[in-house]
Amino acid sequence: MEKFEHGGNIYSKAPVGGKWLDFSANINPLGLAPEVGQVIADNIAGIIHYPDPAARQVKQAVSAFYGLEQEQLVLGNGAAELFYLFLQVIRPQRIGLPVPSFSDYQRAAEAVGAELVYAKLSAEADFQVDFARLRRDFSAVDCVFFGNPNNPTGQLLTRAQREEFMAFAESKGIWTVVDESFLDFLPTDSEYSVRALTGQYEHLFVVRSLTKFFAMPGLRLGFASGHPELVGRLERAKDVWNVNSLAQAAGVAALGLKAYHKRSREFVQQEKDWLYKRLGAIRGLRPIPPSVNFIMVNVEDTGLTSSELTAQMRQQGILVRDCANYTGLEGRQYIRVAVRTRGENEQMLKALEAIV
Amino acid sequence: MEKFEHGGNIYSKAPVGGKWLDFSANINPLGLAPEVGQVIADNIAGIIHYPDPAARQVKQAVSAFYGLEQEQLVLGNGAAELFYLFLQVIRPQRIGLPVPSFSDYQRAAEAVGAELVYAKLSAEADFQVDFARLRRDFSAVDCVFFGNPNNPTGQLLTRAQREEFMAFAESKGIWTVVDESFLDFLPTDSEYSVRALTGQYEHLFVVRSLTKFFAMPGLRLGFASGHPELVGRLERAKDVWNVNSLAQAAGVAALGLKAYHKRSREFVQQEKDWLYKRLGAIRGLRPIPPSVNFIMVNVEDTGLTSSELTAQMRQQGILVRDCANYTGLEGRQYIRVAVRTRGENEQMLKALEAIV
Repeated sequence: MEKFEHGGNIYSKAPVGGKWLDFSANINPLGLAPEVGQVIADNIAGIIHYPDPAARQVKQAVSAFYGLEQEQLVLGNGAAELFYLFLQVIRPQRIGLPVPSFSDYQRAAEAVGAELVYAKLSAEADFQVDFARLRRDFSAVDCVFFGNPNNPTGQLLTRAQREEFMAFAESKGIWTVVDESFLDFLPTDSEYSVRALTGQYEHLFVVRSLTKFFAMPGLRLGFASGHPELVGRLERAKDVWNVNSLAQAAGVAALGLKAYHKRSREFVQQEKDWLYKRLGAIRGLRPIPPSVNFIMVNVEDTGLTSSELTAQMRQQGILVRDCANYTGLEGRQYIRVAVRTRGENEQMLKALEAIV
Repeated sequence: MEKFEHGGNIYSKAPVGGKWLDFSANINPLGLAPEVGQVIADNIAGIIHYPDPAARQVKQAVSAFYGLEQEQLVLGNGAAELFYLFLQVIRPQRIGLPVPSFSDYQRAAEAVGAELVYAKLSAEADFQVDFARLRRDFSAVDCVFFGNPNNPTGQLLTRAQREEFMAFAESKGIWTVVDESFLDFLPTDSEYSVRALTGQYEHLFVVRSLTKFFAMPGLRLGFASGHPELVGRLERAKDVWNVNSLAQAAGVAALGLKAYHKRSREFVQQEKDWLYKRLGAIRGLRPIPPSVNFIMVNVEDTGLTSSELTAQMRQQGILVRDCANYTGLEGRQYIRVAVRTRGENEQMLKALEAIV
């Protein structure tokens, strides 16, 4: 497995039965809302025009939906672009990373030649963050990346738990990047999100994907909230057409579908608990309690390595995420599975049971 | 008019009659090929997956169509992204710009804090490039940007004309960026393109848009050709999903439509000559001989400024590009118009005639 290989790569090899059953990417199991698909179809004729460089409509929709001022917002060609953009503009020298965490933080940091300072989260404590330790480990960094919930562990922290560290970081001039790309899957994120604090903390940068919850990662759409001065710097550093017209139209449509939001959240919250219990009942599997639409599972007691298990699942046409290439999981045996629909989850469980 | 305001911005204000007639963006007048629109529609369901991070199919199609090795290629979310990406990676200190030229070169240069060294092209010589002078003007720069044909002037240079400067630049370690985004509109670009020389010149970077000729700027797709070592650096500096799935599918489809390519080229070549003659016959207008699908017009002798003329056209629902905000055109009165279909061109000419 390559260093920065991600889940969700369905393009590499054809599966046995024709189509992959992809548990390696964490996308809303209810799929693309038909209304969004229709809006995209309706806007195809419009791609003969450049995208709105100010992205007025989608910026307005994001602003209203997430309760943020437009001058706090910068839109991205996916959340991923925003990590690279932020780092290319800020150019931190030393970046603190609690690990394991989303590998693109690391890849983006290496892209700007930053030195990485890892703080290994404890597997024995299910990878919970110990901020007192982080303040020591990260005393000499100028930037820190957090996922909330963290990917692949699923560990979720409240705003209150996070705020002490943020105040410490702000006082030291340390940039804090918080990736909240999965928070939309919670019934409400008001206890967890720090996105509204970017007016108050000038060194805070909060990134969100709009494609995981709305099941459109192929179209690319994300946004970040930052202090208006930072947002201005980022806007000047990117080309003005970075968000394509179809993503702009789809974003506006998707944010308006309140019934789909509610149905998706309810489904994921119930199904993740069901899947967690069922995984825990399989011999040798130790899942970590999930918060959103993915579950990290310790497979050590099966006697198989995570790579062996992943390879055997692949032979059944099922992709799960082998966590072997995550920094911080050296010598550990974990896989990560997405929460999908009941029938698909049962198929995945059956395949797992047959293997272990 | 703002410093970096572009043509093609149809979003700012609603026109009188309902829809803008947009001569300010230089898009293939034959419009989006129906086959490409169909491929986009057929791929909407697939946006629940991440784009192929290696962009295998579209990279293969570009490689075959343009006769480039895949390791010479980097794909962009539009050509514009590639200018920013290149500059963020190379970080030149002083960038030479013959002006007037596409304003995004300047904006991207400012984004990385580079000092700009302008070489003003002579209006009296219809903005032809004098390379002997450029070698002097740019003796202390570490990067130069050229458009071929140059936008907004339409000046086109052969590879032979350009190569002496390129050899000079390579010997000095000066990065040469050549933007060939409009070359697809020529019957053949074999005399003009320098894209294949990126193996030989390690400091050459050749950018092409795939959305002007294929009339899909809203979808964003471009590529660049560079030395494999440079390409590797750029690949590592961008996120892997920068080209959305629909753009990847549309690109593959569009490159296969040989009849559409031929029809588009023939149409543009004939229509540009017709439009050039007709513009020249209007009192006070002095068009510059065009090479591709746009024409720069000196409007000084009408007694109107370019801004006044543009504003009056706008009142008729017709957008033309006021060139007043181009560096190098201070105090000059030029507009730029796209070549569109015969009926649209006649409508634009009629409006111009009524105004001047």
